[in-house]
Amino acid sequence: MKETPSIADCLASRLQSEGIEYVFGVPGDYALPLFSTFRKHGIETVNTCDEQGAGFAADAYARIRGIGAACITYCVGGLKIANAVAEAYAEKSAVVVISGAPGMGERKKDPLLHHKVRNFDTQRKIFEEITVGTTVLDNPDTAASEIDRLLGLARRYHRPVYIEVPRDLQSAPARPSSFPREPEESDPQALAEALEEARQMLLSSRFPLILADVEIHRFGLQKELVELTERTGIPVAATLLGKSVIAETHPHYVGVYEGATGRAEVNDYVEASDCLLLLGVFLTDITVGGSTSSLDMSRCIYATSEKLSIRHHSFEGVLLADFVRGLRKLDIQKKVLPSGFAPPAERIAKTAFRPQDRITVVSLFAEINQILSSEIVVVADVGEALFGASELVIRESTEFLSPAYYASLGFSIPASLGAALANPRLRPLVLVGDGAFQMTGVELSTAVRFGLSPIVVLLNNRGYSTERHILDGPFNDLLEWNYCRMPELLGAGHACQVRTNQELKETLQAALNQRDSYWLIEVRLSPHDHSPALERLAQRLSPGKRAGQVR
Amino acid sequence: MKETPSIADCLASRLQSEGIEYVFGVPGDYALPLFSTFRKHGIETVNTCDEQGAGFAADAYARIRGIGAACITYCVGGLKIANAVAEAYAEKSAVVVISGAPGMGERKKDPLLHHKVRNFDTQRKIFEEITVGTTVLDNPDTAASEIDRLLGLARRYHRPVYIEVPRDLQSAPARPSSFPREPEESDPQALAEALEEARQMLLSSRFPLILADVEIHRFGLQKELVELTERTGIPVAATLLGKSVIAETHPHYVGVYEGATGRAEVNDYVEASDCLLLLGVFLTDITVGGSTSSLDMSRCIYATSEKLSIRHHSFEGVLLADFVRGLRKLDIQKKVLPSGFAPPAERIAKTAFRPQDRITVVSLFAEINQILSSEIVVVADVGEALFGASELVIRESTEFLSPAYYASLGFSIPASLGAALANPRLRPLVLVGDGAFQMTGVELSTAVRFGLSPIVVLLNNRGYSTERHILDGPFNDLLEWNYCRMPELLGAGHACQVRTNQELKETLQAALNQRDSYWLIEVRLSPHDHSPALERLAQRLSPGKRAGQVR
Repeated sequence: MKETPSIADCLASRLQSEGIEYVFGVPGDYALPLFSTFRKHGIETVNTCDEQGAGFAADAYARIRGIGAACITYCVGGLKIANAVAEAYAEKSAVVVISGAPGMGERKKDPLLHHKVRNFDTQRKIFEEITVGTTVLDNPDTAASEIDRLLGLARRYHRPVYIEVPRDLQSAPARPSSFPREPEESDPQALAEALEEARQMLLSSRFPLILADVEIHRFGLQKELVELTERTGIPVAATLLGKSVIAETHPHYVGVYEGATGRAEVNDYVEASDCLLLLGVFLTDITVGGSTSSLDMSRCIYATSEKLSIRHHSFEGVLLADFVRGLRKLDIQKKVLPSGFAPPAERIAKTAFRPQDRITVVSLFAEINQILSSEIVVVADVGEALFGASELVIRESTEFLSPAYYASLGFSIPASLGAALANPRLRPLVLVGDGAFQMTGVELSTAVRFGLSPIVVLLNNRGYSTERHILDGPFNDLLEWNYCRMPELLGAGHACQVRTNQELKETLQAALNQRDSYWLIEVRLSPHDHSPALERLAQRLSPGKRAGQVR
Repeated sequence: MKETPSIADCLASRLQSEGIEYVFGVPGDYALPLFSTFRKHGIETVNTCDEQGAGFAADAYARIRGIGAACITYCVGGLKIANAVAEAYAEKSAVVVISGAPGMGERKKDPLLHHKVRNFDTQRKIFEEITVGTTVLDNPDTAASEIDRLLGLARRYHRPVYIEVPRDLQSAPARPSSFPREPEESDPQALAEALEEARQMLLSSRFPLILADVEIHRFGLQKELVELTERTGIPVAATLLGKSVIAETHPHYVGVYEGATGRAEVNDYVEASDCLLLLGVFLTDITVGGSTSSLDMSRCIYATSEKLSIRHHSFEGVLLADFVRGLRKLDIQKKVLPSGFAPPAERIAKTAFRPQDRITVVSLFAEINQILSSEIVVVADVGEALFGASELVIRESTEFLSPAYYASLGFSIPASLGAALANPRLRPLVLVGDGAFQMTGVELSTAVRFGLSPIVVLLNNRGYSTERHILDGPFNDLLEWNYCRMPELLGAGHACQVRTNQELKETLQAALNQRDSYWLIEVRLSPHDHSPALERLAQRLSPGKRAGQVR
């Protein structure tokens, strides 16, 4: 007779049926049996140096695979990933947080068990603020259904969920799930009406443009986007958060729209459009450069997973996927790009630098641009790494990862672990500043343990450059490490410092040729050398110059 | 005419009047003007590698100075210290969390500004769960009063508070505080009645005993405790969290009481007492070894900052400090220790080990015990470092720091920064395992930047020992770093690996003699060599053996 699966078994099977092959986390006594159960089901557990690393890795995994998971112990583990989970919430990444917890039997009379903060529900309450759903699996009769409900929420909203598993119930036999898993459907009449109105608006427009953002990626609509632009001829711009939602070598691709911080030619294009088709867009201060007012909604068709509006009215019950698929089928023919407008791929390929010259921010990104291929995923940390990376031309869709809106430093190195495990065909190219590297760079240790080989380009500009531009002080200084000594500390890996364009080119080539371990390439930049995007952003953020100031 | 102080000025002045000389944090655009204002007022800003380090450092600073502060940016900084602040809440440490935040003017129409998660109050709501008070300084008329109210709460409860400062109000002129700062007083009749009842109970008891915990330290009652035991002759035991609440060389000191994990002779003593005077005690699973049932409340006088009870009834309106001071004045004479009971200082001093032998956990702590002095503060991380440290004999009061209840790994190295800056007379001796070191050990970088010289003893037992004892698997393994290469990475410091007792002795001595930078002493222990306390704890925590199991 077959044994009834336990609650932990149910959870492991369901994660597996969602395609999760790796769970990231750090063990602790309340969570240990979960780690053991995952392994029993063939899910590899990846323990990072610190829980924070596990949070970022799970987020990156989810961005590539659609869903990811982190498993941690109660409070001392869970609260360490609050920031990474908040990032996944802000930028729509379906991270399943699984927390071991004190047993229900132990909770009687509210004793002070280790790792408890105020009440036994403190951790859950915190996660209610940064997830789309939380549950405590405190009942074997409902646990399997609850797991289904929570995974459904994660899939529906592409945002994190929180599942707490009391340790005395982890091995309890679970009653089979009775949660209905019916696919959500659009209201056919609302959909038809919206599509017809969109068609009319697009037909009568002179310069229609698609602005595509991260939800196109999260909801797996990249192919539909390509078909839409190819069939209708409407060009596509991307946001910074949505960068690589379409291959940036596509002839219909205009570039990244970043409002006040972006390139003038792209801004002008977007802002001159008389019909903007915003698909899965977050209207953030980063996207639109600090002010949403530059976009006139009366010329917008605005579709996200949460709402659909055309000009100033909205439609209920229309799913993003159905709307995008519907648009694709409309009979519209528009001209592609205005004459004289060079797509990003053409603009960049022509730049050349003298081999013996010192590397500059501009020459660095030009060189990196040369080596990008369909086998590389670019993972950019916040700061100059991201500003510079915004001008890279990503060869394939969805191969650029960065917390471009939430903007938490320290994402990139742990994220490269998640990215590499999510798609072993891709090798991560990490772009990271010295400040962010000091936060989470030791997670290269985890890369070594699990045989991963990210190429890390460390932009060493001695401190917090972005902050320095706004308001400087000794609080923006860092100790300058001998970053190239990392392989000696970790007992593995390759590292070197490069100063000239020639050295950079040769080192990048060596790194591409040798996949046995990570490569850390330290690029020592002048602290006074900045990307044009940073100059623009810093000016906008400096005190007294920002929008909406009270006094 | 003198300029009216701004909200940021008010905050800086009040922190200074609380005795705060250092604020720990990492800057970000919403918080930069705060960093600048603190420095203008002579408060040094200490920027750590990661915000997590700042949280732990501020906690340690608060444990020594009574109050400490961390300053971080909105969400991406704040949520990174949620765990450290939760620890301060759980273990009663008055950490003032100061967060820069989007301006009130920017928040109109709820735009997506960078670092925002769900709503503008997401971060505040999270901190409501892990502090005793939160405020947003959104009104120049009430800001100064709000600062006073929050600092009052931190002082009253010795727990964290949260102060959010919208960036467009940081320079707004603040109206002077009207918050009444009246000292709280005990109800004199309740106090007299409680003291008289305690006197009767103590007088009629045969083996009274004081069990003192961390609140005696937090409320500055160490001297009163010494007077109480010396005048009455009642011996004192401490909890692990309260370790060093009295100098452990005091002749009336019995040892650390850890319930099921502690030494049998201390347990027997505590549990045989017919009148236990619990002063400032947290009855946690660590304190009492997993079960509170071993203490019979009908023989307890139980006083904390939150409640006073004698046997099974309680008194309202009696402050811990007044009760302890009152006890001290009672006319009670008891004998000290039973004949044949050796105080901890005598027990340990006699142990000797052969110089050429491999270091063991027992010989390591015996050797460390030899070098302790009134100029050293021991900072122990969670795990074997803490279990072993529980047997150290701390020479002076309040010179032992450890998250012995909340038990978050990674506390010790950043905490040593806070401890050293809180009391420059003390040199931190850090005890840390390899797991915890990999989490936050890079904060030695911050030690270098600020000229601090902790002595770090790294217990390298290759993985998560505590977890291994409970349930083993590859998730308890770590990459073994060449820890002694840290000085090469950081460009400063001393490090070496020691294997024999003689090498350990000589290296500790060299470290004591040279204060120019940190010392990292890696002790390579056999993974099978454990402290007796870990053996006992692991047995208690292993699945199927714990109390209160449901099935």
